[in-house]
Amino acid sequence: MAEEKPELTHIDKTGAASMVDVSEKDTTSRTAVARGEIRMKAQTLRMILSGNAKKGDVLGVARVAGIMAAKRTHELIPLCHPLPLSKVSIEIDPDDTLPGLVVTATTKVSGQTGVEMEALTACSLACLTIYDMAKAVDRGMTIGEIRLVEKMGGKSGHWRLADEPDQGVE
Amino acid sequence: MAEEKPELTHIDKTGAASMVDVSEKDTTSRTAVARGEIRMKAQTLRMILSGNAKKGDVLGVARVAGIMAAKRTHELIPLCHPLPLSKVSIEIDPDDTLPGLVVTATTKVSGQTGVEMEALTACSLACLTIYDMAKAVDRGMTIGEIRLVEKMGGKSGHWRLADEPDQGVE
Amino acid sequence: MAEEKPELTHIDKTGAASMVDVSEKDTTSRTAVARGEIRMKAQTLRMILSGNAKKGDVLGVARVAGIMAAKRTHELIPLCHPLPLSKVSIEIDPDDTLPGLVVTATTKVSGQTGVEMEALTACSLACLTIYDMAKAVDRGMTIGEIRLVEKMGGKSGHWRLADEPDQGVE
Amino acid sequence: MAEEKPELTHIDKTGAASMVDVSEKDTTSRTAVARGEIRMKAQTLRMILSGNAKKGDVLGVARVAGIMAAKRTHELIPLCHPLPLSKVSIEIDPDDTLPGLVVTATTKVSGQTGVEMEALTACSLACLTIYDMAKAVDRGMTIGEIRLVEKMGGKSGHWRLADEPDQGVE
Amino acid sequence: MAEEKPELTHIDKTGAASMVDVSEKDTTSRTAVARGEIRMKAQTLRMILSGNAKKGDVLGVARVAGIMAAKRTHELIPLCHPLPLSKVSIEIDPDDTLPGLVVTATTKVSGQTGVEMEALTACSLACLTIYDMAKAVDRGMTIGEIRLVEKMGGKSGHWRLADEPDQGVE
Amino acid sequence: MAEEKPELTHIDKTGAASMVDVSEKDTTSRTAVARGEIRMKAQTLRMILSGNAKKGDVLGVARVAGIMAAKRTHELIPLCHPLPLSKVSIEIDPDDTLPGLVVTATTKVSGQTGVEMEALTACSLACLTIYDMAKAVDRGMTIGEIRLVEKMGGKSGHWRLADEPDQGVE
Repeated sequence: MAEEKPELTHIDKTGAASMVDVSEKDTTSRTAVARGEIRMKAQTLRMILSGNAKKGDVLGVARVAGIMAAKRTHELIPLCHPLPLSKVSIEIDPDDTLPGLVVTATTKVSGQTGVEMEALTACSLACLTIYDMAKAVDRGMTIGEIRLVEKMGGKSGHWRLADEPDQGVE
Repeated sequence: MAEEKPELTHIDKTGAASMVDVSEKDTTSRTAVARGEIRMKAQTLRMILSGNAKKGDVLGVARVAGIMAAKRTHELIPLCHPLPLSKVSIEIDPDDTLPGLVVTATTKVSGQTGVEMEALTACSLACLTIYDMAKAVDRGMTIGEIRLVEKMGGKSGHWRLADEPDQGVE
Repeated sequence: MAEEKPELTHIDKTGAASMVDVSEKDTTSRTAVARGEIRMKAQTLRMILSGNAKKGDVLGVARVAGIMAAKRTHELIPLCHPLPLSKVSIEIDPDDTLPGLVVTATTKVSGQTGVEMEALTACSLACLTIYDMAKAVDRGMTIGEIRLVEKMGGKSGHWRLADEPDQGVE
Repeated sequence: MAEEKPELTHIDKTGAASMVDVSEKDTTSRTAVARGEIRMKAQTLRMILSGNAKKGDVLGVARVAGIMAAKRTHELIPLCHPLPLSKVSIEIDPDDTLPGLVVTATTKVSGQTGVEMEALTACSLACLTIYDMAKAVDRGMTIGEIRLVEKMGGKSGHWRLADEPDQGVE
Repeated sequence: MAEEKPELTHIDKTGAASMVDVSEKDTTSRTAVARGEIRMKAQTLRMILSGNAKKGDVLGVARVAGIMAAKRTHELIPLCHPLPLSKVSIEIDPDDTLPGLVVTATTKVSGQTGVEMEALTACSLACLTIYDMAKAVDRGMTIGEIRLVEKMGGKSGHWRLADEPDQGVE
Repeated sequence: MAEEKPELTHIDKTGAASMVDVSEKDTTSRTAVARGEIRMKAQTLRMILSGNAKKGDVLGVARVAGIMAAKRTHELIPLCHPLPLSKVSIEIDPDDTLPGLVVTATTKVSGQTGVEMEALTACSLACLTIYDMAKAVDRGMTIGEIRLVEKMGGKSGHWRLADEPDQGVE
């Protein structure tokens, strides 16, 4: 069966890394949603949330950090293309069962390549910022389950993690 | 019992975020080690590793991305102090049981504040770079278990995740 | 009268900051002009200007700083969109009545959102650079009256500060 | 009278701009406080403040923007030295008499050169961020009176704007 | 003969530098190829190449540095326009006759202005990175012959260094 | 003779790139001088110089670009350490025999590692900026002979290119 020949697109035939040519790809509206979590002690979560109720700061700062990081994705990830992002939003929800916080980032662009990396980067930096602001009280916090959950636009069309056979519930 | 009063150090009494004053802290040698993983299909791991054997590229690019990100941590994480890092190294090891790759970042500074965020940021960006370079063949890869595993220097001395009561084996 | 319901566009219904979605806005040619001033001792102004006659440097460096800052506006202002600026120019004129310098920045883009922030940022950084280069002789310099003076393109059409009822002469 | 010979320190004898040599200056603790304001319609101020009461966002985002800008001052202002800032804080207070908001930035370093530019830059970017977030409802807002109000440490010792003969009340 | 009146486009009539207005230029596909070299001791070249055979690192890191620098060209070169690069690739070839390495960078964009500066910047930074990684063994390495070798698209059409009368073989 | 075993310091035993540990190195005053040139048509040189006499701009902008690039060296060159530069200056001299311009950059730091890369980067970016500003009139300009000419401080003491056996006159 010859059809199964996936390739690492960022590596050319001679093995060198390069920023792939997207100039022939269509300019379409593209959206990506990524999600991740930061697990912590129940007490740390309470502190952040009560802090938040009064002050809005840990989660507010994390959202800003995530949004700003999305805009710098191409500076951080070597082979990412610069993209004129048309939207970035970050939602942070508490989850007592972790216990911890779930970060969801949505990015959008009208461009020739997708915005998955921007969403994943936003997610990661929002989590890292929460870690930074709470690390004095809980050094063992863990960032995890950062992954793409949905992707629209571009040649590959609509993709959802939930539809993947082996990935189970996201 | 008055001793249990942990506080979110980046939030002042009025609830505003600020970059805390470290000017009175000792300048000491500080080291941090962070670790994370990226889980993928077994086939993706083989492709990266065989690619790597011949070419050195996915892992090589990810290492560079992690090192460069460590140096920009203070630009990305709003309340982090700028630090004159004296060392950054990234180790990436395959783990067939994930299957996937385990990224370990070590950072060092002689400074007034710790280098945990630099190690965690290096780890995250190395994982994101691996995702970027292999996403064309495996969109469902997941970044996880990013956490501090060791920390030396500074007022709090030597800390190891493995010694924490609830954290189990890292 | 239901029509008066201005809203802070960068804050969503839940109160979280986000980079607003501009993907449905038209791509049109947009221009913005911002102006600001830096007031100083008459002696400082003379020194800068005579320095400039011979050397071209304080004002030349300030112009470069303003232009470069315009290009980084989206990195500095959290909810600004990245924009492919097609023009930035800075004009710096002495004003003996201040005494001081008046900085005018003009920015242009063909895009889905305006370039006001780029013009205002260019203006501010040009003023800050003048402060930096002359602060050894005049620490009390004051930057002021930084505002948008004109805006063309986009849904809101042509807007001029001079036409605003309460703003008087700019 | 030979004593009156102030010089523009960033310009060498040949008239070229350069980053002056601070290597012989003492490493001392240095602090700077800068202040600025953004004037707006009374209605805009109410909207921001009530928004803030519920959500904490405009002022919260502006504080983060100011802090992050302080850390990048040397990238933005051509002849500024990079500095390992040990503290940055931003305070934003409403002032009904403007009407508007007053932004105060405090920066600290243990270094060979002062942190005035960092405080002034933080102030300017916090004001610009407020402008950005409220511009949809009030395009005529004006940023002004950005100046150094206090400076401690370094050869010149303690300086306060309030003590300057011609500057009046700050 | 009035036709010979070339002008420095980044300087306006009053002598001030500005980022020229490209908003009226056509959006076309544009490509640039730049080349440069780094000369070194024969022994250094062997060390890099043998290192490379086993490890892939000096040249791999230099390629990544060149690609990442291309994306930041507009931040580094004051009057360059920001461009949404659609492709960057770097090729590094040994040349025993130098002895040294020859770096070729290719950049591509669909935009209103050319990508020469991006290709030249990529080339320069790849060479500087090689210098950095080998300087401990050969401080006298020299970077040279960095120039544009080909340019396609835009008003001026196809240009090749090899076709220039005085430039001889490149 | 076992003494001849130079090694590429940025590559560890396993072949991976890393930012070498400088934490045990002495903090000393370190200076570096780098030089480079940009060759052009005689007519282009005259245009830049006459432009300069009246306006100061091409060379002025190039100096600023070089100084600003020096401060960002560690962001651009993957394995460079961040350094608190205490001085950067750029001198640009015409040379009719090239014909072209000779750029000399001097950098200084009190730190644990040298400032060669900062001087070389400043030199390269000053040349690239000259290219950018004059490319409309002379596309064939060539940047060359970028190399370290002097280095003081650190373990290796005083080094001058002119003293090197094979390098001849610099």
